[in-house]
Amino acid sequence: MYKIAVIPGDGIGPEVTTEGVKVLKALADSSDLDFKFEDFNLGADHYLETGELVTDEVKEELADFDAIYLGAVGDPRVEPGVLEKGILLDLRFSFDQYVNLRPIKLLDEKFTPLKDTQGEDINFVVVRENTEGLYAGFGGVLKKDTPDEVATQEMVNTRKGVERVIRYAFEYTQQRDEAKKLTVCDKRNVLTYAHSLWQRAFDDVAPEYSDVEPDHMLVDAMTMKMVRNPEDFDVVVTCNMFGDIITDLGAELQGGMGLAVSGNINPDGVSMFEPVHGSAPDIAGQNIANPIAAILAAQMMVEVLGHSEEAARIEDAIKQALEDNKVTADMGGDLSTAEAGDYISNLL
Amino acid sequence: MYKIAVIPGDGIGPEVTTEGVKVLKALADSSDLDFKFEDFNLGADHYLETGELVTDEVKEELADFDAIYLGAVGDPRVEPGVLEKGILLDLRFSFDQYVNLRPIKLLDEKFTPLKDTQGEDINFVVVRENTEGLYAGFGGVLKKDTPDEVATQEMVNTRKGVERVIRYAFEYTQQRDEAKKLTVCDKRNVLTYAHSLWQRAFDDVAPEYSDVEPDHMLVDAMTMKMVRNPEDFDVVVTCNMFGDIITDLGAELQGGMGLAVSGNINPDGVSMFEPVHGSAPDIAGQNIANPIAAILAAQMMVEVLGHSEEAARIEDAIKQALEDNKVTADMGGDLSTAEAGDYISNLL
Ligand SMILES: CC(C)[C@H](C(=O)O)[C@@H](O)C(=O)O
Ligand SMILES: CC(C)[C@H](C(=O)O)[C@@H](O)C(=O)O
Repeated sequence: MYKIAVIPGDGIGPEVTTEGVKVLKALADSSDLDFKFEDFNLGADHYLETGELVTDEVKEELADFDAIYLGAVGDPRVEPGVLEKGILLDLRFSFDQYVNLRPIKLLDEKFTPLKDTQGEDINFVVVRENTEGLYAGFGGVLKKDTPDEVATQEMVNTRKGVERVIRYAFEYTQQRDEAKKLTVCDKRNVLTYAHSLWQRAFDDVAPEYSDVEPDHMLVDAMTMKMVRNPEDFDVVVTCNMFGDIITDLGAELQGGMGLAVSGNINPDGVSMFEPVHGSAPDIAGQNIANPIAAILAAQMMVEVLGHSEEAARIEDAIKQALEDNKVTADMGGDLSTAEAGDYISNLL
Repeated sequence: MYKIAVIPGDGIGPEVTTEGVKVLKALADSSDLDFKFEDFNLGADHYLETGELVTDEVKEELADFDAIYLGAVGDPRVEPGVLEKGILLDLRFSFDQYVNLRPIKLLDEKFTPLKDTQGEDINFVVVRENTEGLYAGFGGVLKKDTPDEVATQEMVNTRKGVERVIRYAFEYTQQRDEAKKLTVCDKRNVLTYAHSLWQRAFDDVAPEYSDVEPDHMLVDAMTMKMVRNPEDFDVVVTCNMFGDIITDLGAELQGGMGLAVSGNINPDGVSMFEPVHGSAPDIAGQNIANPIAAILAAQMMVEVLGHSEEAARIEDAIKQALEDNKVTADMGGDLSTAEAGDYISNLL
């Protein structure tokens, strides 16, 4: 029995997590797995009512769960950054979810914007550092709103933080059935302090994993190669900021936000799974949001909890729904959010 | 009579700048323009012989020229970063070339990796800040190579630096014949210090340019949209680091490094023009490097010096060569570097 904390969040968040939960219940009905869900009311409404984002008490409660399942946060009534930093990033940091795992996998060829690409060409995983770098929150503003204003933001890396995510990436690569190349993506020729640490940590650790082929790409060249030769990548490890950028690019290559999933993983603690898309307030409450990314997040949760076979069943059901065009309008179908979730659940 | 300083640099640099100079000479023969070229021996060889990168004396000499024409720097015998920072970035900073202008323009449909894209869909310009941000060189390493190591890199923005490049971008957008939307690309929801300055500077300046439609994109979403709907962009203004990344992505969308050009512009000083590609030491000295990006750099130089009509003639000649497939092997042709340059020169 897995205890899952559900944070539906803002906008379309509640609609899509409802479908993810539905799918997990259907999985439970047809397997040995069992889940118990508890909702946490965090997000814009709660913040605007109480002024609270995530309190220490809530964090203590969350620590008792086996995983966190998050919809989306973000609301036009709140300044940009407040909910993202105060909820999403705070949870990532507080639970030391130092790995952000983002598979870039084309489930159905018709969804890629690339030509000359076979389905199997787009199949790699980005391991993004998730607790430091430019996301550390360091920086300041001097002489604000004067002509002499200076504003800074600091990329802070620790050896421990960089090394552990690199080791995770090597181990992840080792366990893959497919080819075993690990590419470190950085900007070592310009960020000669912060990314020299990445370079040295990677080079130091690599010899311990002799069955993995180590590889390097500068971030600018990386974006080019992702578009031109995505088949060249197996696993990519990178810093928080660059990971944010290249995983969104990757998401688009494999079909867009409707199919992109993100796992915030602490291998020794509580992990959190979410669709990559935002709260999409413009379409919230209309039962038209695409639930597939949220269902993929539920799938990744099952996978990381140690049940690959059951996770694969969810993926197969999603692929089937895509093939049958039993999807929402944004994916070319005509189902509602709830109907799309039903269709996938019924395939389990 | 324009005085042009040529820095051929490393690897294929000398081969491709030779062709650019050839084309400019052909242009001079068939127009009222006139150029005088002087070579500067900077790069890996000079560095390894003398230990010098760019001395103050050389900078004083360069200051007397109307423009700098650079091939490429970078050499496997030298640590990554030394030549890039010591020559390329030092020149950008020393001459206060605060605009890095990168057109993303599909010259020939067959070269884009995107499907469903018409030639005219990919036609926008990125205005990249070029003298501050993460490129400032601020940062340090504490307890190097110990488990307690901390390495930092600072993104430093000044109001003056941000505002001037934003103003340049607004003015550039105003002067375009095409649609007039200016998109500021940042990560304001996470970089709440450094990019709040970008946000405020953009919002403050926008009302002065009422004929330009102001627009905003987060950098992660930006990469997605560039791939899915490149036709949505007219002009994009962004910080140094993000500009580096998205312009390489853009370069790939319009056909790759073989066709990508970069202008480092100081509107009141000496500007520098270069192909985006690197020194490609693996193919240097074989007369097989593609000279088109270097020729496009020469074209942009002519344009920025104020001669749009003559610049358009170079572009037309390049388009013709692409259509006639009179290009090097990497572009699908079978000409040598020198032959490809001859072909374009003869069309002028
Ligand atoms: C919402 C935002 C803070 C977040 C990030 O930048 O990490 C998102 O873009 C993501 O990638 O999960
Ligand atoms: C070579 C490197 C320092 C440079 C940069 O990062 O600016 C290059 O990538 C570019 O975009 O001109």
